[in-house]
Amino acid sequence: MVPNLTTALTGPLLDLEKHVIAAQPAIEHWFRSRWQEHATPFYSSVDLRNAGFKLAPVDTNLFPGGFNNLNPAFLPLAVQAAQVAVEKMCTSAQRFLIIPENHTRNAFYLQNVATLAQIIRKVGITVRLGSLIPDLKEPLILDLPDGGVIKLEPVRREGNRIMVGDFNPCAVLLNNDLSAGIPDILKGLDSDQTLLPPLHAGWAVRRKSNHFRAYADLARAFAQVVGIDPWLIDPYYAVCGEVDFQAREGEECLATHVSETLERVRAKYREYGIDKEPFVIVKADAGTYGMGILTAKSADDVRDLNRKTRNKMAVVKEGLAVDKVLVQEGVYTYESLNAAVAEPVVYMIDHFVVGGFYRVHTGRGVDENLNAPGMHFVPLAFEQSCSLPDSNARPDAPANRFYTYGVLARLAALAAAVELEDTDPEFHPEVVL
Amino acid sequence: MVPNLTTALTGPLLDLEKHVIAAQPAIEHWFRSRWQEHATPFYSSVDLRNAGFKLAPVDTNLFPGGFNNLNPAFLPLAVQAAQVAVEKMCTSAQRFLIIPENHTRNAFYLQNVATLAQIIRKVGITVRLGSLIPDLKEPLILDLPDGGVIKLEPVRREGNRIMVGDFNPCAVLLNNDLSAGIPDILKGLDSDQTLLPPLHAGWAVRRKSNHFRAYADLARAFAQVVGIDPWLIDPYYAVCGEVDFQAREGEECLATHVSETLERVRAKYREYGIDKEPFVIVKADAGTYGMGILTAKSADDVRDLNRKTRNKMAVVKEGLAVDKVLVQEGVYTYESLNAAVAEPVVYMIDHFVVGGFYRVHTGRGVDENLNAPGMHFVPLAFEQSCSLPDSNARPDAPANRFYTYGVLARLAALAAAVELEDTDPEFHPEVVL
Repeated sequence: MVPNLTTALTGPLLDLEKHVIAAQPAIEHWFRSRWQEHATPFYSSVDLRNAGFKLAPVDTNLFPGGFNNLNPAFLPLAVQAAQVAVEKMCTSAQRFLIIPENHTRNAFYLQNVATLAQIIRKVGITVRLGSLIPDLKEPLILDLPDGGVIKLEPVRREGNRIMVGDFNPCAVLLNNDLSAGIPDILKGLDSDQTLLPPLHAGWAVRRKSNHFRAYADLARAFAQVVGIDPWLIDPYYAVCGEVDFQAREGEECLATHVSETLERVRAKYREYGIDKEPFVIVKADAGTYGMGILTAKSADDVRDLNRKTRNKMAVVKEGLAVDKVLVQEGVYTYESLNAAVAEPVVYMIDHFVVGGFYRVHTGRGVDENLNAPGMHFVPLAFEQSCSLPDSNARPDAPANRFYTYGVLARLAALAAAVELEDTDPEFHPEVVL
Repeated sequence: MVPNLTTALTGPLLDLEKHVIAAQPAIEHWFRSRWQEHATPFYSSVDLRNAGFKLAPVDTNLFPGGFNNLNPAFLPLAVQAAQVAVEKMCTSAQRFLIIPENHTRNAFYLQNVATLAQIIRKVGITVRLGSLIPDLKEPLILDLPDGGVIKLEPVRREGNRIMVGDFNPCAVLLNNDLSAGIPDILKGLDSDQTLLPPLHAGWAVRRKSNHFRAYADLARAFAQVVGIDPWLIDPYYAVCGEVDFQAREGEECLATHVSETLERVRAKYREYGIDKEPFVIVKADAGTYGMGILTAKSADDVRDLNRKTRNKMAVVKEGLAVDKVLVQEGVYTYESLNAAVAEPVVYMIDHFVVGGFYRVHTGRGVDENLNAPGMHFVPLAFEQSCSLPDSNARPDAPANRFYTYGVLARLAALAAAVELEDTDPEFHPEVVL
């Protein structure tokens, strides 16, 4: 049972929301022009942090894994958005292969894959699931929490196309973030077998710093449209190259960036009279899943790390080594539900917001990262749509808060579009797949 | 309070639905190709008749007037579809003028206009309402059933643009079917002030026979995709030119067509073992609103009409005279709710089904027209979306029945797209505005 979300929505009126609701026609007009210039990722999810005085995306996922957590009442919205995304492809698009992560023991993840397949099937596309699990020879049938099953079939290569059985898909939808590197089987595919998103969207190539650079540019332009200080929607960040936690190299560079970023945030807190202690989040520039993430309130917090923390920071998912490190302004998590921290995640297909949910977690503080390994959150589906702003209601009324969430998430998705253009190997030979 | 719709959905399994659900991927693929070839009307609504053995559109409205009757839960779907429609226009689209009918005393119609304006506003378009009421000098504020108000402003012409006050819209959304003819103020507008739909979609120019000719062609192609007899989705029809009911001219021509159409239907009923008496609906080829409609079960029913019936048939809405007459196979209304006849109406924005409702009417028979003057129907909003077919459920499960309704409605909207191309005055000089 999903408790009523409005519990999470009490609190002081957000000045930002007031500006966003007032500028809604200008915002939508601005987005329409931007989407004409940039190719939208097929899908995305965006983690937001709402500090009351500030609202910002902190993670943009191009392989979203929580479609099962969305409100089923909004399924038609997802189907309609997927219809638009499919129509942008060749009209001959009829067969999709979805390639999920290899997490066969995470039943909730598998339920996400099943939900995603269901959305694409409702568009009238035939869907099969292909697995990259090494040495998988036979189809694998797995049980789902909802009582259903899904079938994963071994992906095979035939010439420059990938297939499962005799199923020759015209598009391959990756729900696998390629943290372990790009498998050879996906390299050099026929150009008419479309990979969604492209290979360079995977964590083998993607860097958070590229994303937040693109986001910062867009946030400045957007802030001008809305008439706000861009800092209110954009966390400060700095990048530290050549950090080796295990060899204790680059520690001073990191400490300096942490200290400088904290100082910039402190100045903003003074400007706005915010009586809180600034903090930063230190994370790997590549990779995902919250491994290699730590919170720092002073430069000392990243000096003299104990062995355990250093080991944790030194590797991320699938053993990818950390080298570049992102120091990002921490945004307090303001929303809560029965004293549990609640963090919104917004889901998009093409450039349409199709739903979202709160990650509700009781065991963590407001300045910690919720998307961490072993973390058990309770997903709380958004009860309302993000597309129904109501200028007659209070700026923090649920309809308006969800609209604002959707706007910020779309801004992050747009940044991802720009980021993917800026790192397209076809036009940027320095990017190596 | 809206009673549960499933009551209306009991009854024998429809063979047609079975075929439609089985062919869903082929159907969606076929639609995707067709929509690439034809420009979709901005919006439309389609009246369907479900006879159990046969399901067919009988009226395609290009100025839909019941958005207030849709399930509010599906409002986000309408907003998202309108977003797609607006994106197809120039990116500079920011201001819409909606021109409603002059029915200022029909509060439910005004509520429709308010709902429509709300949908467009959620897309981020500034909307004002312009009225064609003759001699309107000042804005007119009217109360709505939901407690709100709407403001109608007199439309004025400035050069080749229309405006209200100093509001210079880039698009004019007609919710006025122009039965009274095309007002001079709308003629010869700047090409960058887009009229949606175009003037020749109005009943001053539009003819039902053009629509059903286009529909019949598409129904044949569609039936081939699905593997069914096109008759199962397409009512027979014939057109009688030069009928003057008041002068009793053309009566024999009409009787002959009625007789021939009934004979064709009778043959089909024999082929399918349908134990019902065929009937036809006789209606004006131009015009709407159910004036000038009669039911005939034999040629005698259109001979020797009494004066009252002849007068009724001789004029349609706004005094437009009947000349050409459409004789259309009648499709029995099979669905009912507590013994009341229930007739589905499906709403589309662009090529997306955004909802629908049943017209539920207690006082009429299964072979009569529900959309008649003075008729008081109870709108019963569709409780489910039309985009969630479920091949694991029975073909007549609500999700599948609504999907099938959506498919047939989209086929009719596609026919309207073809019809508007075939009657575009720019390419067909015989069409005079």
